[in-house]
Amino acid sequence: MNTPSESCRKWIGISVGDPTGIGPEIVVGSIATGIPQQECVPIALGNSRVLQKAAQLRNLPLEIRSVESMHTARNLYNAGSINLRQTLLCLETGADDVDQWVGPNWSPAIEPRAGQAAYDYVVRGTKLCLQGELQGLVTGPLHKVALSGAGHDWPGHTELLAHLCGVKDSAMMLYLTPGKPHHGGSAGLGVVHVTLHCALREVFDRLSIESIYQTIALTRAFFSKLRANMHLPPEPRIAVAALNPHAGESGRFGTEESTLIRPAVEKAVQAGWHVFGPLPVDTLMPAAARGDYDAVVAMYHDQGHIALKLLDMFEAVNITLGLPIVRTSVAHGTAHDIAWRGIANAGGMTEAIVTAARLAPAGS
Amino acid sequence: MNTPSESCRKWIGISVGDPTGIGPEIVVGSIATGIPQQECVPIALGNSRVLQKAAQLRNLPLEIRSVESMHTARNLYNAGSINLRQTLLCLETGADDVDQWVGPNWSPAIEPRAGQAAYDYVVRGTKLCLQGELQGLVTGPLHKVALSGAGHDWPGHTELLAHLCGVKDSAMMLYLTPGKPHHGGSAGLGVVHVTLHCALREVFDRLSIESIYQTIALTRAFFSKLRANMHLPPEPRIAVAALNPHAGESGRFGTEESTLIRPAVEKAVQAGWHVFGPLPVDTLMPAAARGDYDAVVAMYHDQGHIALKLLDMFEAVNITLGLPIVRTSVAHGTAHDIAWRGIANAGGMTEAIVTAARLAPAGS
Repeated sequence: MNTPSESCRKWIGISVGDPTGIGPEIVVGSIATGIPQQECVPIALGNSRVLQKAAQLRNLPLEIRSVESMHTARNLYNAGSINLRQTLLCLETGADDVDQWVGPNWSPAIEPRAGQAAYDYVVRGTKLCLQGELQGLVTGPLHKVALSGAGHDWPGHTELLAHLCGVKDSAMMLYLTPGKPHHGGSAGLGVVHVTLHCALREVFDRLSIESIYQTIALTRAFFSKLRANMHLPPEPRIAVAALNPHAGESGRFGTEESTLIRPAVEKAVQAGWHVFGPLPVDTLMPAAARGDYDAVVAMYHDQGHIALKLLDMFEAVNITLGLPIVRTSVAHGTAHDIAWRGIANAGGMTEAIVTAARLAPAGS
Repeated sequence: MNTPSESCRKWIGISVGDPTGIGPEIVVGSIATGIPQQECVPIALGNSRVLQKAAQLRNLPLEIRSVESMHTARNLYNAGSINLRQTLLCLETGADDVDQWVGPNWSPAIEPRAGQAAYDYVVRGTKLCLQGELQGLVTGPLHKVALSGAGHDWPGHTELLAHLCGVKDSAMMLYLTPGKPHHGGSAGLGVVHVTLHCALREVFDRLSIESIYQTIALTRAFFSKLRANMHLPPEPRIAVAALNPHAGESGRFGTEESTLIRPAVEKAVQAGWHVFGPLPVDTLMPAAARGDYDAVVAMYHDQGHIALKLLDMFEAVNITLGLPIVRTSVAHGTAHDIAWRGIANAGGMTEAIVTAARLAPAGS
């Protein structure tokens, strides 16, 4: 159980996120459960001494083993020198002095140098995925103001990753793994967003038949693959949320349902997909939580986020659809208010790593 | 237990709603539990033979006693002739032939004459409240298309009741009674809407510092009274939701937080009220469900409805704030797809009646 079998030896990178937030704690907290290592070989991208401090803070019997390259990591692992239950590999990345100013005595603040470190971790992890050195990337939370302070002006991970991968059509999904009440059906429950990080006023201009259809297509591609991997009938059931209350009530409360959403749904149905909508989102979400659909396509950020965070704030996994790499993340932020106190909930990180491993292609 | 004590003899009217929907079933289903009668004297406004059919459909040992006026009802009750556990009083209202075409063999359809009946029940109930004959009104679900087909063009109960009561400032609240997980704190959890039945595009023009402040004020007035009735410290904690994702992220994703919502919150804080925000709604809702706030002020329909319907779709109570009368309702619709099959969940109706009784002034 300590070593994944040959057939599932997938290397999953974990970018630690902003080191001044809860990222380091939830990474070591998750690995110390032993659950991620049942499905993959996890390797952190960060500062190994910061992770060691976080492990000590939580009294975890976890050794952080610093390595400079994937080549070294692979050699160590293949030589049988690494007990994954007791040791977390860390690919030493970014500025090497981070541990000198962050730790349990650190007064949480937004730091551009922490933003730069978080950026370096994500960029290296993404490149290693694109090169096939990693089979998937799990990203710890970053703080956009710190990131921006370091000169990297991205509204979120999703947009940064799409840029790094040279991808135009991508979408952010929040996902609940199956097996718990209100986590949907046999393949869990996903909510995918047509628009994401923009003012609510801008949503109307960003919605089009094409953008809605593309999001449906990304959702279907993801769940078809996931369901096949899970030995379920592959065609997923996808519900598309309305934009307006009561789904516009026949045009009385808005027209986007008839001019944009319905045509996109009809195009998807004509392709033979099992797509339904537009449906009033307030009654759709409870139905989806009960398992009526694999996924809901939401028109804007809060429409999807309100629902998924209520259903399971700490175990929702953030997955970027449309990338050439597998990428998952926790759905919460850096939580600076509770960082470096040893109390952050690592459940979402475990879900994110396990989900990445399940989605990842077999490694070498 | 079958007769409310003198001190709490509150007469609560129940307008049955659209008789072709689930209204009749959930009214008799609720009364048959015996729970509403512990807190009030319930009296239906509808067609007594339709209610009798619904009771038979559900095999309920409930007699429907038709009366023509509140005067007759009071005399019967005061003479001790009514066992509230076995008998539901029904104030015979509207067209008297409804029972001839609706019932278990009825094929559900949207009917203007059913819309007219539902309208008549609400109007009579509202008038009796305004006259002091009833201490509160609980409304069964109506169907807006049927209502409109009968020439009454209201987007919902809330707007119709405000008109009947001659009120300008009112607001629709969804409310969960306390005592269950995720139902908020000691006084339950309310979500109150600044804007309601309009296209999402129109929300921006309808929001103003004044409309947000007024909604906060209505929310505070309601919960101050409720908390005092419940012998809790009276000042409620009210959270105000942001409009944009991440609460606009310092203006990056929209400016309404700084131009409209924050000034309204500051005005409320200056009045000495415990009001917080604007807060990102996706993290606010789980905090409110855990009991951090008595109420959330939402900027638009779906923002509040997604959360409350996920938390408890069948037991949420709809309360109109700002009316001179007490009015509650179920939060769900007519559910024509399952009407007259004897399977509709009556839990929300019971919550609505009990809540109305608790909010109502003592009667005579």
